[in-house]
Amino acid sequence: YGKNTIKFLRLHKEGKKQFVKEVEVCAHLRLTSPQEYLEGNNSLVIPTDTIKNIVLVLAKKNGIPSLEQFAIDICNHFMTTFCQVAYVKTYVQEVPWQRLHEDGVPHIHSFICVPDGIRFCEAEQCRNGPLIVFAGIKDLKLMKTTQSGFEGFYKNEHTTLPERHDRILCGELFCKWSYGECKDFDFDCIWKKIRECILEAFAGPPDCGEYSPSYQKTVNCIQMLVLSRVSQVQIIEVVLNNTFYNVVDMKNLGLTNDKEVLVPVEAPYGSCACTLGRKKFFEA
Amino acid sequence: YGKNTIKFLRLHKEGKKQFVKEVEVCAHLRLTSPQEYLEGNNSLVIPTDTIKNIVLVLAKKNGIPSLEQFAIDICNHFMTTFCQVAYVKTYVQEVPWQRLHEDGVPHIHSFICVPDGIRFCEAEQCRNGPLIVFAGIKDLKLMKTTQSGFEGFYKNEHTTLPERHDRILCGELFCKWSYGECKDFDFDCIWKKIRECILEAFAGPPDCGEYSPSYQKTVNCIQMLVLSRVSQVQIIEVVLNNTFYNVVDMKNLGLTNDKEVLVPVEAPYGSCACTLGRKKFFEA
Amino acid sequence: YGKNTIKFLRLHKEGKKQFVKEVEVCAHLRLTSPQEYLEGNNSLVIPTDTIKNIVLVLAKKNGIPSLEQFAIDICNHFMTTFCQVAYVKTYVQEVPWQRLHEDGVPHIHSFICVPDGIRFCEAEQCRNGPLIVFAGIKDLKLMKTTQSGFEGFYKNEHTTLPERHDRILCGELFCKWSYGECKDFDFDCIWKKIRECILEAFAGPPDCGEYSPSYQKTVNCIQMLVLSRVSQVQIIEVVLNNTFYNVVDMKNLGLTNDKEVLVPVEAPYGSCACTLGRKKFFEA
Amino acid sequence: YGKNTIKFLRLHKEGKKQFVKEVEVCAHLRLTSPQEYLEGNNSLVIPTDTIKNIVLVLAKKNGIPSLEQFAIDICNHFMTTFCQVAYVKTYVQEVPWQRLHEDGVPHIHSFICVPDGIRFCEAEQCRNGPLIVFAGIKDLKLMKTTQSGFEGFYKNEHTTLPERHDRILCGELFCKWSYGECKDFDFDCIWKKIRECILEAFAGPPDCGEYSPSYQKTVNCIQMLVLSRVSQVQIIEVVLNNTFYNVVDMKNLGLTNDKEVLVPVEAPYGSCACTLGRKKFFEA
Repeated sequence: YGKNTIKFLRLHKEGKKQFVKEVEVCAHLRLTSPQEYLEGNNSLVIPTDTIKNIVLVLAKKNGIPSLEQFAIDICNHFMTTFCQVAYVKTYVQEVPWQRLHEDGVPHIHSFICVPDGIRFCEAEQCRNGPLIVFAGIKDLKLMKTTQSGFEGFYKNEHTTLPERHDRILCGELFCKWSYGECKDFDFDCIWKKIRECILEAFAGPPDCGEYSPSYQKTVNCIQMLVLSRVSQVQIIEVVLNNTFYNVVDMKNLGLTNDKEVLVPVEAPYGSCACTLGRKKFFEA
Repeated sequence: YGKNTIKFLRLHKEGKKQFVKEVEVCAHLRLTSPQEYLEGNNSLVIPTDTIKNIVLVLAKKNGIPSLEQFAIDICNHFMTTFCQVAYVKTYVQEVPWQRLHEDGVPHIHSFICVPDGIRFCEAEQCRNGPLIVFAGIKDLKLMKTTQSGFEGFYKNEHTTLPERHDRILCGELFCKWSYGECKDFDFDCIWKKIRECILEAFAGPPDCGEYSPSYQKTVNCIQMLVLSRVSQVQIIEVVLNNTFYNVVDMKNLGLTNDKEVLVPVEAPYGSCACTLGRKKFFEA
Repeated sequence: YGKNTIKFLRLHKEGKKQFVKEVEVCAHLRLTSPQEYLEGNNSLVIPTDTIKNIVLVLAKKNGIPSLEQFAIDICNHFMTTFCQVAYVKTYVQEVPWQRLHEDGVPHIHSFICVPDGIRFCEAEQCRNGPLIVFAGIKDLKLMKTTQSGFEGFYKNEHTTLPERHDRILCGELFCKWSYGECKDFDFDCIWKKIRECILEAFAGPPDCGEYSPSYQKTVNCIQMLVLSRVSQVQIIEVVLNNTFYNVVDMKNLGLTNDKEVLVPVEAPYGSCACTLGRKKFFEA
Repeated sequence: YGKNTIKFLRLHKEGKKQFVKEVEVCAHLRLTSPQEYLEGNNSLVIPTDTIKNIVLVLAKKNGIPSLEQFAIDICNHFMTTFCQVAYVKTYVQEVPWQRLHEDGVPHIHSFICVPDGIRFCEAEQCRNGPLIVFAGIKDLKLMKTTQSGFEGFYKNEHTTLPERHDRILCGELFCKWSYGECKDFDFDCIWKKIRECILEAFAGPPDCGEYSPSYQKTVNCIQMLVLSRVSQVQIIEVVLNNTFYNVVDMKNLGLTNDKEVLVPVEAPYGSCACTLGRKKFFEA
């Protein structure tokens, strides 16, 4: 196969107001014949440079109405234009530019980069198969300073971890979900709604939170809330890369540390992941 | 000298409401005698491990009222406790945790990491010298999609750059300023005010912006605005690492690209910097 | 599932001579029941901390005879000790410390880090299934300054790439292969032999090289040579992340540039990959 | 000022044998007038694009006989061509391509990247001042598994570090030195000699090593050896970024760990640096 990455900016104006999308597109093609590998025959190969041109031309012609629509457009173009393409996958990721505000007034042409979770999507299609659309958020860092524990786990002679009922829950979230047949979806609106579900399920009610008995259970709560609130989501995968924090033992230094000063534990570094669908259950 | 970096979390509560500061502290000491280097005599050396303990103990005892106050506390501790210390510099940087909000309601114990410019500060002191405090912001990425050009520059036989009066202005800002004698400063409030000045000077008025004839002039505008609005600032240094974008030439592809699709130019990668004080002018 | 990463050093001595292995181990477990996710019941969960202890204890007891043997040992331990484990995968990667030499004399306890390709391996097993061992090399950067071209590719209205018969071939290689049933393999020796095959297939004969008509064909040559020379390899996957270089056009500057000065093209960034087995052919 | 970075490849041939240098050049200019900053007057500004062209043209015309000579050529060009330049500094860094060998036979056009310490240099000049040349090595990772300790350090109530007489000494070295007046220096040869001195001073004799009482003393030994062996070196700066390793306490796990299994300590992360000249002594 061939894969490649293109980064570019798409501007447009409405009157004097300017809009910007900066995206990174990764296109991945598989051809019907492996002759380029086996025989060194390049006659079916679509060069990286041509793929780049196509992506830029589509951005120029159609704009980027939403990341998902742009990914769909690219998939469609490759499938309909090149009969030697057996499979195409496009990944589109956004640089999180947000319009600047001065005293609450939006600026007509200035932007600030606010990377509090990166939006991405994928569209993939096999020849003669359905087009499948995924969307997601990555690099979303969240922390709960209380209402988290880890107790009742399996113990044997190699166990040294104490049980804890009031620890820090902190990690980097990756969520990716698939949509069913996409008819007139408002992808931007759905994405925002899902982001809110993730934050709500992670944090619990603002006035008291909700106790998390493990990273795993929190992952599951996120999935359950998204599936219950957003009907367009078919399957949702969540990966939580944990950062552990240890309360510093200050006895040697003559002090009591009542969960006031904590240091991150670099290793072991843990991760838990789960994929949940509407009817059946997968664990990967 | 010796330098080292410590990363930790400081929590505190007001009633049920939790507050968190995660910081990275870098302490840098120079001793009065180089005997550790020349003779392998360690008797004056303060181990990295001890420095770490001191920083954590100070965080436990005093909390982190502001980054600047914490940096000052550390400096003072080393100067007053260890007569073998000739010079101390402390650098404190913040992980940008922000309180989560659900439908506008602040959450009592959940936070999200929003790295739209990282706050840092420094305090430094030579024995018998004044304590000097610096503060700053780094990794602040800003973009203007219009109202920027670069014309009238020096030309010779190696010049290939065309003049442009409507380009993208995009870059990563680093700003660092020094305070005069710090009497009862509200460091948090001053820092926020300076951040607003930077954004305002970069972007110009929200309804029309302000034309930038060069990266250099924009750097100068930022400095001038901060110095004019914030009397506590003595000297301000600004570095702007530019990202250039080229309008993609689509003539070969049969299209006119009216500054709609642009690609970042990875190299050359430019940077401009300037340090400006109240009376005299330095350029470095 | 749960995954985690542990980094450590294993030392041993033979007389006065010291040996060191620094490895990063990633263990990935899937349990027979998802009750931790669904019910918040942790009773089967093996904490990250326990996994770390087990890996360190195995390193202490058995040493690291080879990366592959160590990965196998960890897999076996989890499968035989914990009946709640349905699947285990262990990844082991080496920090490339090499013994220092002074005027050709090996040093008894000093080492230098030489990252010219990183060795790694994987062992994985489902309960009641066979244990499968993979090994590989990653981050291996190679360049041919001639004997490479790309011609005869597919062309249409979006093609702008010229045909080239004398370009630079440069990229970062990732190779991963599986072994069949591992009886008394000398994993270190086999790994070195495969590394030599990769270099030989990439470069061709030292006195003249061998023409590469595409990145894809070079990938295939590497696979074919490894499969023909190393009988223990069952399937081999190769990914080549290309760096393209353009000859700088110096006409505007009044100079002819006969492939003397080239600049890397940051985007598009390409990649080609292929998986080849002994009898059948997969392309992914 | 203005600074910018250019990365490129310079090829040349001797008969059929090909040679390659890939370098990253950073040029830093200060002009005689700050009018670009203060008045937005660009008439003296040399655009980044022009600087890039000049560097590439010099590489084309002169080749890169050595990194140092190339840096000197660039400095000279800017000083003699542009009277508005008050100061110029050029930094040149090499991508460590090494010729591939097959069974000891060098390949005529294939190379492998071996980053076991990166070579760099700097040349700087003020108008009417001397041209000063620096050279150096960075990212050189070294380890001694024994013959290192840290004892007799300063202790007080914040000390928790135990004394150790047999620890691991491991770190990343940065060395930079200045040359005096450069008459017909063989920069490549001198650089190799200095690299050997660094390794020798770090490791000690191959059969027994040499005890290091501290990171600081090792830094000093490196400096002393270089100054004594290489007369062209005027001043040498060494920075050693330490990686600490702790012997894992396995008592809880029923095992004795005789410095066999160690884990890296991520924080605190230490660094020690020293600058040493021929007559006087600086500590920074």
